[in-house]
Amino acid sequence: MSIFDIAGVNPTLVSRLMVELDDVSTIFDRQLASDFPPVNTLSVHVGRYRGKMLRPTLVLLSGMAVDESVVDSSHYHRTIGAVTEMIHMATLVHDDVLDESSVRRGGATVNALHGNEMAVMLGDYLISNAFHLCSTIGDPNLNLRLGEITNTLCEGEIVQLHNRENVDLDEDMYLTIVTNKTASLIGGCCELGARLAGADLKIQKALHEYGINLGVAFQITDDLLDLTADQQELGKTVGRDLDMGKLTLPLIRALRDGDDQRQIAALVRDRCHAQLQERLQDDGWFESARETAMDRVASARRWIGDLPDNAATTMLHLLADAVVQRRF
Amino acid sequence: MSIFDIAGVNPTLVSRLMVELDDVSTIFDRQLASDFPPVNTLSVHVGRYRGKMLRPTLVLLSGMAVDESVVDSSHYHRTIGAVTEMIHMATLVHDDVLDESSVRRGGATVNALHGNEMAVMLGDYLISNAFHLCSTIGDPNLNLRLGEITNTLCEGEIVQLHNRENVDLDEDMYLTIVTNKTASLIGGCCELGARLAGADLKIQKALHEYGINLGVAFQITDDLLDLTADQQELGKTVGRDLDMGKLTLPLIRALRDGDDQRQIAALVRDRCHAQLQERLQDDGWFESARETAMDRVASARRWIGDLPDNAATTMLHLLADAVVQRRF
Repeated sequence: MSIFDIAGVNPTLVSRLMVELDDVSTIFDRQLASDFPPVNTLSVHVGRYRGKMLRPTLVLLSGMAVDESVVDSSHYHRTIGAVTEMIHMATLVHDDVLDESSVRRGGATVNALHGNEMAVMLGDYLISNAFHLCSTIGDPNLNLRLGEITNTLCEGEIVQLHNRENVDLDEDMYLTIVTNKTASLIGGCCELGARLAGADLKIQKALHEYGINLGVAFQITDDLLDLTADQQELGKTVGRDLDMGKLTLPLIRALRDGDDQRQIAALVRDRCHAQLQERLQDDGWFESARETAMDRVASARRWIGDLPDNAATTMLHLLADAVVQRRF
Repeated sequence: MSIFDIAGVNPTLVSRLMVELDDVSTIFDRQLASDFPPVNTLSVHVGRYRGKMLRPTLVLLSGMAVDESVVDSSHYHRTIGAVTEMIHMATLVHDDVLDESSVRRGGATVNALHGNEMAVMLGDYLISNAFHLCSTIGDPNLNLRLGEITNTLCEGEIVQLHNRENVDLDEDMYLTIVTNKTASLIGGCCELGARLAGADLKIQKALHEYGINLGVAFQITDDLLDLTADQQELGKTVGRDLDMGKLTLPLIRALRDGDDQRQIAALVRDRCHAQLQERLQDDGWFESARETAMDRVASARRWIGDLPDNAATTMLHLLADAVVQRRF
């Protein structure tokens, strides 16, 4: 299932995006190309992780929503698209080390194949190249904003790690973590796409908030899939959050408001996946989390209510809805 | 033993440097300060790693060598000093994960104390903040150059990892690895210090080459210490290179030109530290590596032969000599 199969998306826009995203991939690959074969072997592996390219798509769409014609001629949008995808790949590679995951997009992870050490260094190489690529645009404010975003992202990851095995983690802190580690980059994509298209600060902020809400909805849904999905279908290791002592929204709510909190805490402690899954389903906690994600989607859509009425804006609306409905 | 205890260094210059480096530390700490206590706990730990501050010292000295008066008023030199130290700290934190080291500067490593996951994320936080801090200067060329340097650094680390357990590693590849992973940043410090002081391209290149040669000499010496030093005295885990299958100069030469190469290969394979140490000492391979480091020091000094004759230039010469003589 791809972003471009979403019902109602303008086919002409999809064709344009496909061409643009091909360019993004070319920029991405060219940036990572090295004189050293072992480095290229790793980069090829990362290429396989590249799936839906949600982040570059948001950079491009946000630019087009502001000014339909701008992205065709904008090397900057494509460059920043590649930068954000590189940052995202770095987080995937390092997350797989953190989570000891062995499967991603239906294939072996870098850590599983080349060891944790190689995965650590590959992530660093991706981060470094993302900043280098961003610098080629020559606008110091872009670098500054990218640095702010990645600082926030790392803070989110550190706070999340710190709260592993913390059964008292509350919903506010969970949302702070999710906002920082996931939504900050997605919000940044939308904001930078708008900025590069010449949007004023008000519109940049609107698109930033759209992205933040979309990102939170996306992560809540991702966390839900880790509890509910079939591993084969999802193409990555599932049940990892619980194994790693990472509490997510349905569990946080069940532990705070559930009928038998002590029993649920015991199931968490003993990593009883199947029983927990059944319990959370029966007690409506999956549905409760899904509703929160849908509320965030509604917020995201409200933030872009005043954008020009064009195909890109329509796709941003459709994309927001799709985030909570499908498994991409 | 500190850089500032080197015999012959101008005491007025040392006082100036001390004040400047205090400012560098302040910038460093302020940059890493977070709203999240778990992040600050980690940053405090990194503060303890900060020892000789060789890299900021080289940024400052290179600036002063070009124009004695410039650094006093240059917030940029201090900022770039903090940036380079942050990159260096990130490599230490991630190296300790790679090498599974438990001791650094006489204390527990981040990975030993908070786990590998936290060390991975802390390293990322440091890299991200280094780029963010660099961006505050507002000169896109600085960001571009920093990105090039860190790309090279990561490539060096990846190629080194790739060559673990490779008993056929040759001297050229060893020197390429050392140049990329260590000397590129040290050369960058000298070059950027000169550039920020308004040096022309020829002088920037001279200082860059000084730093590259100094860095290679430094790493050869560091590798030697890992084979020869006392752990308590050095304040970090020793013998790690051999444990990790990382061949360094004395061993590479003994395996290529030694009397009984097969016997040495067996000692490497079986990790026989004491016997290897004795063998390399007796056969003169430690001395041979030391001579190569000293040749690099001589090259470094030749590159700065035409710099203005002032206290900072003198200190750069003394520092080059000191790199191979002492244990800082």
